[in-house]
Amino acid sequence: MSLALIIPDRKLDDLQQRLTQALPDTRIDVWPDIHQPDAVEFAVVWKQPAGCLAALPKLKAIQCYGAGVDAILADATLPTLPIARIVDPSLTRTMVRYVDGVVSHYRLRLDQFSLQQRQALWRPKSPRRLQHISVLGLGELGSAVAAHFVSLGYQVSGWARTAKQLEQVQVYHGAGQLAAAVAQADVIICLLPLTQATQGLLGQTFFSSTKPGAIFINVARGAIVDDNALLDALQSGQLEAACLDVFSQEPLPAEHAFWQHPAILITPHVSAVTNVATVVEQIADNYRRSQQGLPLLNLVDVTRGY
Amino acid sequence: MSLALIIPDRKLDDLQQRLTQALPDTRIDVWPDIHQPDAVEFAVVWKQPAGCLAALPKLKAIQCYGAGVDAILADATLPTLPIARIVDPSLTRTMVRYVDGVVSHYRLRLDQFSLQQRQALWRPKSPRRLQHISVLGLGELGSAVAAHFVSLGYQVSGWARTAKQLEQVQVYHGAGQLAAAVAQADVIICLLPLTQATQGLLGQTFFSSTKPGAIFINVARGAIVDDNALLDALQSGQLEAACLDVFSQEPLPAEHAFWQHPAILITPHVSAVTNVATVVEQIADNYRRSQQGLPLLNLVDVTRGY
Repeated sequence: MSLALIIPDRKLDDLQQRLTQALPDTRIDVWPDIHQPDAVEFAVVWKQPAGCLAALPKLKAIQCYGAGVDAILADATLPTLPIARIVDPSLTRTMVRYVDGVVSHYRLRLDQFSLQQRQALWRPKSPRRLQHISVLGLGELGSAVAAHFVSLGYQVSGWARTAKQLEQVQVYHGAGQLAAAVAQADVIICLLPLTQATQGLLGQTFFSSTKPGAIFINVARGAIVDDNALLDALQSGQLEAACLDVFSQEPLPAEHAFWQHPAILITPHVSAVTNVATVVEQIADNYRRSQQGLPLLNLVDVTRGY
Repeated sequence: MSLALIIPDRKLDDLQQRLTQALPDTRIDVWPDIHQPDAVEFAVVWKQPAGCLAALPKLKAIQCYGAGVDAILADATLPTLPIARIVDPSLTRTMVRYVDGVVSHYRLRLDQFSLQQRQALWRPKSPRRLQHISVLGLGELGSAVAAHFVSLGYQVSGWARTAKQLEQVQVYHGAGQLAAAVAQADVIICLLPLTQATQGLLGQTFFSSTKPGAIFINVARGAIVDDNALLDALQSGQLEAACLDVFSQEPLPAEHAFWQHPAILITPHVSAVTNVATVVEQIADNYRRSQQGLPLLNLVDVTRGY
């Protein structure tokens, strides 16, 4: 029996070595060099080429190498197997620190001062009064982000698929309450999973319901947002600025209008990258559980999409 | 008797109105419209034109309208009178939030990603590992900034004129220990007062003692730094980046080399602006003390310069 790493876009030496230490009796193969496809019982997966999981006849379980499983589920030939995702406190902490820093960036008007610097313009201004933050998506990451801004004294609202209770967060739920969830927000942070229900959800209708001059931050998935509707909202002033870490196509194509937009800050999908050192144990644990017939930790509900 | 506001670079309607409410029996004049110069017993001052305080023969006390009194002391005709400065918890909080946001900006590499964005370059990178912060100047603001970064888990060192004890801060003092105070620091934050001893203190010798690739933040006074030595340190890579909020000449002249430097972030002296609402009470209190012959609150030691 063996474990396969199917993660085409990363260097995997470190992960392979750490997993070999954690699971000394298990062969660790790195796709596409799979020694014996019919010996693979467990796969660690991130943006796998369509069909490569279906080619492993003895596969028992799939471990997503991140928090969002949308890329795995997009494979039409995906075998019906348990899928687990990473729930990593250090990933959560990294995300919280990212959005905290981006909100400070806008609070301090570093966006405006940077643009003014290019023109040698000296225009002192008090910090932006950002008082109300709305978090879309209240899973592991969204809940932690909401709690962080509550702890800093912000008013916080949130939106989820189903009703939830979070301390000092006004939670809205369901499609009918999305507009209400953002109506008062100075900053909107998208941490939704990408599912059939959220694909393109943040489009023209959504942006027309924001508070005029709001700031939009997307750290979830690019395809949740309608790029043209976002550009229109910036153009009309409905949004004052946007910070985008994720895009429908990554790397963002060089000709995309986002790159040169003065009101858009682009970061290259860095808000929360899975940390090898901290996730190895979680992967090894799920491998052992799978071998023992136990339910996986952080199992994904495939019909729900997360 | 009257109180004069000598603050040439601000609109003072709000301050005048609030002081009139706080001190209903006192005439509040706004320089240069001083009704009776020989009736002025108390002056609230910020960047006064040289000589204008000497022209008030009955003046008993000077209230600086900020934390740093260097601009007041620069006046060669300054009468020998008690000088108080503002010590404002909300000013301290504003400063802490500014440096916190700037450190996050560098931690998240928003400086690099912004430059890459202009060229449509997609180059993901983990956050900078900023672990050690050195705070130069451990007065009201510097101590609060040091304590903030201690609370976030950073290693913190500091440097002051004289020996001090601050919890979990390794404090260096005196000219001989300045190099040691910054030798290990990933980020250096200047919060020194501008005095004869600190003017030009951060020059070539200083920058040659920093950890190569350090980040320098100046939120104190521009004249503490030798501009050319700073540019040289950025050129050689001794510093990786600098965030400057204060300058020898403000507004920073349009032709100054800082404006277009890719490794310098300029903000137009916004890190901690005195808040009218919160300082009125402190000014009124010192006015009453001066009238009653009591010592002023937050009295400045003129020989020391702060």
